[in-house]
Amino acid sequence: MLTIDGLQYSNWSREIFEQMRAGGVTAVHATLVYHENTRETLTRFGEWNRRFEQHSDLIMPVYEPADIQRAHASNRIGVFFGAQNCSPIEDDIDMIAVMRRMGLMIMQLTYNNQSLLATGCYEAQDNGITRFGRQAIAEMNRTGMIIDMSHSSEKSTLEAIKLSTRPVIISHANPSTFHAAKRNKSDKVLKAIAESGGLLGFSVYPFHLKDGPDCTLESFCDMVADTANLMGIEHIGLGTDLCQGQPQTVLDWMRNGRWSKEMDFGEGNKGNAGWPRPLTWFQDNRDFPAIIEGLRKKGFNETDVQKIMGLNWLKQLEEGTTPAI
Amino acid sequence: MLTIDGLQYSNWSREIFEQMRAGGVTAVHATLVYHENTRETLTRFGEWNRRFEQHSDLIMPVYEPADIQRAHASNRIGVFFGAQNCSPIEDDIDMIAVMRRMGLMIMQLTYNNQSLLATGCYEAQDNGITRFGRQAIAEMNRTGMIIDMSHSSEKSTLEAIKLSTRPVIISHANPSTFHAAKRNKSDKVLKAIAESGGLLGFSVYPFHLKDGPDCTLESFCDMVADTANLMGIEHIGLGTDLCQGQPQTVLDWMRNGRWSKEMDFGEGNKGNAGWPRPLTWFQDNRDFPAIIEGLRKKGFNETDVQKIMGLNWLKQLEEGTTPAI
Repeated sequence: MLTIDGLQYSNWSREIFEQMRAGGVTAVHATLVYHENTRETLTRFGEWNRRFEQHSDLIMPVYEPADIQRAHASNRIGVFFGAQNCSPIEDDIDMIAVMRRMGLMIMQLTYNNQSLLATGCYEAQDNGITRFGRQAIAEMNRTGMIIDMSHSSEKSTLEAIKLSTRPVIISHANPSTFHAAKRNKSDKVLKAIAESGGLLGFSVYPFHLKDGPDCTLESFCDMVADTANLMGIEHIGLGTDLCQGQPQTVLDWMRNGRWSKEMDFGEGNKGNAGWPRPLTWFQDNRDFPAIIEGLRKKGFNETDVQKIMGLNWLKQLEEGTTPAI
Repeated sequence: MLTIDGLQYSNWSREIFEQMRAGGVTAVHATLVYHENTRETLTRFGEWNRRFEQHSDLIMPVYEPADIQRAHASNRIGVFFGAQNCSPIEDDIDMIAVMRRMGLMIMQLTYNNQSLLATGCYEAQDNGITRFGRQAIAEMNRTGMIIDMSHSSEKSTLEAIKLSTRPVIISHANPSTFHAAKRNKSDKVLKAIAESGGLLGFSVYPFHLKDGPDCTLESFCDMVADTANLMGIEHIGLGTDLCQGQPQTVLDWMRNGRWSKEMDFGEGNKGNAGWPRPLTWFQDNRDFPAIIEGLRKKGFNETDVQKIMGLNWLKQLEEGTTPAI
């Protein structure tokens, strides 16, 4: 089964790539950067180039959606890149085409905070899409860089969908009706995402789940079924948000970047500052077959399981990343 | 006739692109940067992306040699990029693959001065290829970025040729025997370039020519014929070094970058600090047919004229820019 995970930021290693193959992963949306500026983003590309060179038997870069089929045919994992923030483009709209050429297929307009483009989901006030944001959305549409609003706030998300001439996605989050969290999304947002032709990738990050680390596979699959009813079976996929093997320092970097002198605990708090305890049924990249079984048990037919596991993501990439020109 | 100019740094404009078409130019090696660092190099790519967007009826980017044929078929000029210095990679070997992906097909190891990789032709002492230089040559070979030693000194050039597993080129210079200048090349270097499988692109920059701005077309074509005898007809082409329409500030930038507080006059001097007076027979991009006629008159047969005007450059790009892996 063609399996595409719509978001990971794992502590990449040969062991993890081997586990991905064992878990049947065809392709993964790898977060390239959180807060890195333009120059630092190139360093991240450089590090990935070394991985592609060193583990060429296991992984390959995805510069166009057809590369995912090539990865599949050669029994390798295709890696496509996204940024969780707009920091790679700094204040320079020309960096959108540059980063797209480098292989950045997806970019979030914000990461929790106000950015130059839009408002993040942790801000008290949502200002919507900025002047630069409007220009950036048009340029992302033109160059075929998918707009991801996972960490954005509601008004900004709805405005981005309205302004964009192409589908807008939420690569990794869950419905608020399943679990109320700042990072999860209202039905209003999810319906607008589906109407745009976009997609929601379901997260298995415990902070996004009902009952946190104790969320059952059955409960997760109930959520999938409810969301399929809300958004349509074509508009859902996976976006595990798996951060396999990452140390605490990385969690602190994700939450604080360079913007705060006080420690920000993100979805945690002072008494619960660390990585959450993992789910029993999804601990690492070998556990994708468990989700397949869960979906089958829930009653999804084989065609729908294939769509959720990967085909919907493939279609998003095919439709969203070809240059408009 | 497929015409490839192996170096220009013109003050790019629609007028110049139109003149290129009028002059029958199929493709041009455009200098992207002289002293720009990694981030600044991306800004230059960004500016070119705007040109490609605004003048898509006249120009297109060349990411692989086959794009030159595509440009030819669509009556446009293909633009391929080179750096006159190694500043785009800073001190970071991973930036070679990154810049190659962006479309940087050619890079000089030095520009007149000592660089992190090799020694430039204006230094008193030639240290040869540095430790970083050896690593960079191997990585350029691996990724398919052509090594250009136009502004390098003799020992560094000979060492680069020895270390490189792929052809090394001089994109723009002339033989020292034609005109003794620091930027022109000894027969020893030219023979080694040819033996590596590389190429010399003939410059029409007056400082590189016998009699300077008064050099005749006949004299230029005599030099071409003599060099064909020395290097072989497969190893010569054009590299005009045309800087059409550039102001004095750009000449000062080329010569001084950020490295000098005293004015450096490069190939000129205090009393002759400006752009040289242009040749009568090659003033701008419309004048390539004059060179074709000059070569025919000199007695080159049509096959050889085609090689000199473009086919040799095309072959260099085909052999030199495919990734080794």
